[in-house]
Amino acid sequence: MMSKSGLSRLPEPPYYAVIFTSRRSDGDDAYAAAAQPMAELAQQQPGFQGVESTRGDHGCGITVSYWADEPSIVAWKRRAEHAATRARGSEHWYHHYELRVAKVERAYGKNTHA
Amino acid sequence: MMSKSGLSRLPEPPYYAVIFTSRRSDGDDAYAAAAQPMAELAQQQPGFQGVESTRGDHGCGITVSYWADEPSIVAWKRRAEHAATRARGSEHWYHHYELRVAKVERAYGKNTHA
Repeated sequence: MMSKSGLSRLPEPPYYAVIFTSRRSDGDDAYAAAAQPMAELAQQQPGFQGVESTRGDHGCGITVSYWADEPSIVAWKRRAEHAATRARGSEHWYHHYELRVAKVERAYGKNTHA
Repeated sequence: MMSKSGLSRLPEPPYYAVIFTSRRSDGDDAYAAAAQPMAELAQQQPGFQGVESTRGDHGCGITVSYWADEPSIVAWKRRAEHAATRARGSEHWYHHYELRVAKVERAYGKNTHA
C-alpha cells in the first residue's frame, strides 16, 4: 500500500483519489491523538489502495487517499464521520479545508529505487 | 488562484487535478532555481485554476494543480517539458515520482477566514 519512500504504488487507472487540503488550527494535541487511528481505520476499509500525505511549514497539509471505486469512498466517509464524532469533531482541527473527490484517468511515474 | 492560506478556491466541479507526488533527490540547487519559474509558467497557462503544494520532512512532496479541462493539461505538459529540458532535466531532481491526472467530480470545504 505504501512504499518505503512514502509514495503509493497503485494498480492501473481508473481508480479514485480523495484530495484533502487543509490548514491546521493552532494546538494539535487532539489531532495528533486521533489522526493515527483514523489513518489505520482507512487502511482497513474495503477498496482502500493507498495514501500519500505531507504537511509543510505554516500548517498547510495535503493528504491524497486512493480508492478502488466510489462506493468505497462513501463507506469510508461514513465510518470516518462516525469516528470523528467520537473524537469530538475533526472540524475543530482545521481553519480551512477543501475536500475533492476525483477519478484518476491516467498515471505514470519513475522510481529509481524500485 | 491561491488564497492567503495556500489553499485554492476553485469553481464548481467538474474540473481536472494533476496530482504530482515525489521524493526529492539530494542536493536541490538546480531545483530551487527552476521551480519558481515553472510555477509562474503554469499560472500563465490557459485553463490554469490553482495550485496547492507542500513538502514535508524527508523530502516527500505533493503538488496538486487544477485545470479547466484536459486540453489545458496537455498544453501545460508540453510547455513544462520544454522548460524542463532547458533546465537540464527535472528528472534528475527526483528519486521517485508519481503523476496522476484526475477528473474532480465533487468538492466541498470549510473556511473560517473567508
